[in-house]
Amino acid sequence: MDINEYRKQAKKAVDEIADYYESIPSRRVVADVSPGYLRPLLPDAAPAEGESMEAIAADIQSKIMPGITHWAHPGFMAFFPCTASHPANIAEMWSNAFNGAHFNWICSPAVTELETVVMDWLAKALALPACYLSGGPTHGGGVLHGSASEAILTVMVAARDRYLARVTAHLPDGEDKEERLWRHRSRLVALGSAGAHSSTKKAAQVLGVRFDTVPVDAAGGYAMTGPALAAKLAQLRAKGLEPFYLTATLGTTDVCAVDDFAGIAATLAQDQGSKTDTTTTTTNGASTNGDDAAAVGTAADEVWVHVDAAFAGSALVLEEYQHLTAPFAAFHSFNFNPHKWLLTTFDCSAVWVRSRADLITALSIKPAYLRNEFSDSDLVTDYRDWQIPLGRRFRSLKLWFVLRSYGIAGLRAHVRRGIDLGRLLGDKIASRPDLLAPFTPARFALVSFRVVGRDEAQRNARTERLYETLNASGHVYLTSTVVNGTFAIRVSTSTAAVREEHVQATFDLIVRETEALLAQEGQGTVNQVDQ
Amino acid sequence: MDINEYRKQAKKAVDEIADYYESIPSRRVVADVSPGYLRPLLPDAAPAEGESMEAIAADIQSKIMPGITHWAHPGFMAFFPCTASHPANIAEMWSNAFNGAHFNWICSPAVTELETVVMDWLAKALALPACYLSGGPTHGGGVLHGSASEAILTVMVAARDRYLARVTAHLPDGEDKEERLWRHRSRLVALGSAGAHSSTKKAAQVLGVRFDTVPVDAAGGYAMTGPALAAKLAQLRAKGLEPFYLTATLGTTDVCAVDDFAGIAATLAQDQGSKTDTTTTTTNGASTNGDDAAAVGTAADEVWVHVDAAFAGSALVLEEYQHLTAPFAAFHSFNFNPHKWLLTTFDCSAVWVRSRADLITALSIKPAYLRNEFSDSDLVTDYRDWQIPLGRRFRSLKLWFVLRSYGIAGLRAHVRRGIDLGRLLGDKIASRPDLLAPFTPARFALVSFRVVGRDEAQRNARTERLYETLNASGHVYLTSTVVNGTFAIRVSTSTAAVREEHVQATFDLIVRETEALLAQEGQGTVNQVDQ
Repeated sequence: MDINEYRKQAKKAVDEIADYYESIPSRRVVADVSPGYLRPLLPDAAPAEGESMEAIAADIQSKIMPGITHWAHPGFMAFFPCTASHPANIAEMWSNAFNGAHFNWICSPAVTELETVVMDWLAKALALPACYLSGGPTHGGGVLHGSASEAILTVMVAARDRYLARVTAHLPDGEDKEERLWRHRSRLVALGSAGAHSSTKKAAQVLGVRFDTVPVDAAGGYAMTGPALAAKLAQLRAKGLEPFYLTATLGTTDVCAVDDFAGIAATLAQDQGSKTDTTTTTTNGASTNGDDAAAVGTAADEVWVHVDAAFAGSALVLEEYQHLTAPFAAFHSFNFNPHKWLLTTFDCSAVWVRSRADLITALSIKPAYLRNEFSDSDLVTDYRDWQIPLGRRFRSLKLWFVLRSYGIAGLRAHVRRGIDLGRLLGDKIASRPDLLAPFTPARFALVSFRVVGRDEAQRNARTERLYETLNASGHVYLTSTVVNGTFAIRVSTSTAAVREEHVQATFDLIVRETEALLAQEGQGTVNQVDQ
Repeated sequence: MDINEYRKQAKKAVDEIADYYESIPSRRVVADVSPGYLRPLLPDAAPAEGESMEAIAADIQSKIMPGITHWAHPGFMAFFPCTASHPANIAEMWSNAFNGAHFNWICSPAVTELETVVMDWLAKALALPACYLSGGPTHGGGVLHGSASEAILTVMVAARDRYLARVTAHLPDGEDKEERLWRHRSRLVALGSAGAHSSTKKAAQVLGVRFDTVPVDAAGGYAMTGPALAAKLAQLRAKGLEPFYLTATLGTTDVCAVDDFAGIAATLAQDQGSKTDTTTTTTNGASTNGDDAAAVGTAADEVWVHVDAAFAGSALVLEEYQHLTAPFAAFHSFNFNPHKWLLTTFDCSAVWVRSRADLITALSIKPAYLRNEFSDSDLVTDYRDWQIPLGRRFRSLKLWFVLRSYGIAGLRAHVRRGIDLGRLLGDKIASRPDLLAPFTPARFALVSFRVVGRDEAQRNARTERLYETLNASGHVYLTSTVVNGTFAIRVSTSTAAVREEHVQATFDLIVRETEALLAQEGQGTVNQVDQ
C-alpha cells in the first residue's frame, strides 16, 4: 500500500468507523454468537498472495462485527466502563505513526518527556499528595502501564525487594544472609481486603508469595477498616508470617466500596511506631526523607501500601472527592486507569510511586554502579526500569490529547454526569420498594440492587432470574456480583454515551421484567399450591 | 467532539500523518534535543477549559516532532527495527473503535476467536511444530502479549510452578511439603546463554530466582551449544542448585547468533533419560502425552526450554530457515515479535506454548474445581489466564490485516529484502579490508563490523570513534555492541523503508568517515613521533 492508497484507505476507515459509532445505539449491546462462530468463516491458513483492503474491510462488517460487544453502547452498564474518545483515538493514530520500541530516552525523547509531564498534570488534577510528583520531596513520579494488574505486580516486586533488603540490612553478605533471606521469603504475605480486585491475588501467585484477605462486612459498607487490618496483621505475625504489602481500594469492583484510608494509615503508623525503637535501623531511609507525611515510621518491616483506584480514581477530578487523597501521603503507590472512566482509549493505566528508587532498585537490570547515576539524575528517566516490559508504546500522547481537548472542566462534567445518573437510578430503584431493594447506595456511578422476597434464598433466586432476563433482552448489558453470599445486580452508569433517557429506559425495563417475573412466579405458586 | 467533527479531524490527521511519512527521508534520523527539552514548552498543569484540535495538532508539529527519533527512516539501522505498516495502522483504528477491556470471551467474542485463528495461521506460516497449534496433540496454542519480556516472565512462571509441582508431587500435603517447596524455591536457577536478551535476567529478578548464563565464544559464533549447557547444568547441580528454565535464542541481540537447538535438545534428552528411571514419576504427564516429539523424557525436574526469537523469528516465513524449527518440538514455548520485523505496529509479541494447561495452572486465579472445565474445554479460551494483565487490546486485528494484505508472498519478499541487503552490506565491508573487518557474518539482516587496527585496543578505540561520528552525522542511526570485550558496530538492514541506495549511502558514509578518522590519526601519530 503506497502513501496515496494509505490516504484513501485510512479516510475510508474513518468514515466506516464513524458510521459504526452512529449505528451503535440501534445494535444489540452484547454479541449474539456461539463459541467457535468465527473459525468456520475463515480460511485455515493465511493467504499466499495479498488481498485488497476492500476485501478485508468487508470482512470487518460481515465476520468481526457480529462478534463484537459494543462497549460504547448507551446500554452497556456492565463491569466498569472502557471509555474511548475521538481525541484519544486521533492521538493513537499519531502514536502509531511514531511507531517505535521506545525503551530508552533517545528512542524518542518526546515519548519519555511527555509522559513525565502528563503524569504530573494528572497527579495535580487528582489532587494527589506532592510525594507522587516527579519533582516532589521523596523523588517519586508517575508512569503509564498497560493495566492495573501490571501496576500491582510491579509495585509488589518493589515492595518485596525493599522489605527483604530492610530486614536483612544488618547482616553481612554471605551464606548466612542468603539463608535468612530465604527464610523471610518463605514467610511473606501480600494483603488486600476481601473486596480487593483479583489482580492482587494474581500478583502474589506470580511472585510465589502468600496472599491473604482482610475481612469486610455489610455493616462497614464492605470497606476495609483500620481495626480489621490490625487484627489481620496480628494474626499473621502470631503464625510467624511477614505481611509486607497491602492493596487498599478506592472503589471495589463489586460495590465500589472505599476503604478507610485514614484508619489504615493510623493502624500502620501505630504498627511501625511500636517497632521503630526495637527494630534494626534501615539503611535506606530515602522513602521517608523530606516527606511531608510524618505518619509513617521507618521500621524495617514497614508494610507497603498501594491504593488501587482503577475505576473510581477518575472521580478524584471532582473537588468533592479530593479529600480522599490526603492519607495517600502516608502510602507508597497509587494507580487508576484513565482507560476506564477518563475517556482515554484502552490501554492506559496510570501508576505513581512515592520513591522511584524503590522501583528502579527492583526492576533495573543495570549493574549497581550505574544505578545511582540513573536514579539520582533528574535529567533522563528510563521508564523501562519502572515496569516489566522493555519496549513501550507512546501512551502519554492520548492522555495529553484527552486532558487538553476536554480540559479539567470537560472531564469533570463527564464524570459528574455518570455519578448523577447513578444517583438518579438509585432513587428510581428506591421508589419501587414493592419490587426492588437497593443493595449498596449509588457510589461513583455504580448502583447495585436486588429483587424483594420473603427470605434470602428467594431474593437471591429472583435477582439471578431477573439478571438473566435483562441481559437476554439485548437492550442492556449488566453484571452481577455475589458479596458474602448475597446475589446482586450491578448497574454502571459511567459509559460515555449514557444519558438520562437511557437510565429511564433501563429502569423501565427492570420494572417491567420484575413485574413479569413476580407475576409468573405468582401463577407458578398458585399452581404449586393447587397440586 | 461530535461525530462530524471526528470525521473531519481524523481525516485531517490521516493527511498530516501521510505528510509526515513522506517527509521522513529528508529528516535527521535521531532527535536532536537535550534532556528536559519538553517541559519548558508546556504549561505546568492541564488546561481548565478544553482546547481546539487545531491547537493540539499544531503542538504535535512544533513540540513533539523535534523529540521524535524516526524509526521508519531508511537510515534507521539501530537496535532491531520496529516496522509499522499502513494496513496494521488502519487495523489499529478499528481496534480502537471496538475499544473494550476484553478480559473474557463475552467481552467481544471476535477478540478471543480471531486471536486463536490468527495465531494458528502464524504458527503455520513459521512452520512451528504441531504441538504449538491450538488443535495440536499437546493442547498448546498461541497468545498475543505486549512484549517479549512479558512473554518470558509468563512462561517462566509456568515453568516454575510446573517444576515445583513435579518435584513435590510424591509428598502428601502438609507442613513438610511446604518446607520442601521452599527448599526447592531457594535453589531454582533460570538460565540463558551469555548472549540471551536481558529479559530473562529481568524475569528471574522479578520472580526472585537465581539467573545464570551458559557461556558462548567466538569460535562457536556466540551460539549456545549442547555441551556448554551440559557443563553448566552439571556445575549448578554440583552446588545443590536446581536449573528449571532455559531461554534458547534464535537471533541474539548483539550478533544474531542462533543457538544449537538440536544440540540443546539432545543434551536435555540425555539429561532426562539418565534420570527418568530414578526420579519420582510425575503425576502430570500431559505435556508430553500424544506428542510427536519423543525426545524429552518426563523426569520430574525436566528443564523448560523457551525459544526467544523476538527479532529473527520473522525470518521463519522463509522456507530456507524453516528447518530450524524441527527441534522446537522438544521444547516448551516459543515467541517472536511481529512488531519488530513483520510489519505489525508495536506492540505485538506472539507466544506459543506446547501445553496451555501449564500456563493456566500457573496464572488462573479461578478455584481449582473450575480449572479443568476451562482448560479441557476447546469452546472458549480465557486468554486472561495466559498472561499477566486482565484486560486485553484487540491486537490480533492488526496481525490479521498484515497477513491478509501482504499475503505470505509479500511478507517473504519484505523479509528476504532485508536479509539480502544485509549480505550486500557485508560484502561491501569485506571489500575494504584496508579499512574495515567483518565482526560476525551478515545474519538475518544484521551486519557487524569493526575498523582495522594493529591490536585489539586500537581496533576497539577506532571502532568506537567511528560509531560516534556516524551517529552524529544524523544521516544514519546505528547501535554498538561489546561482545566478550570486543567493540563492534551493528547495522540492521531490516527497516521496511531500506533499499539498496540507502545501504550504498550508509557504506559510503562508513568508508568516508573511516578514511577521515585514519587520516586524522595518521597526522596525530606523525606529530606524536615528531615530538
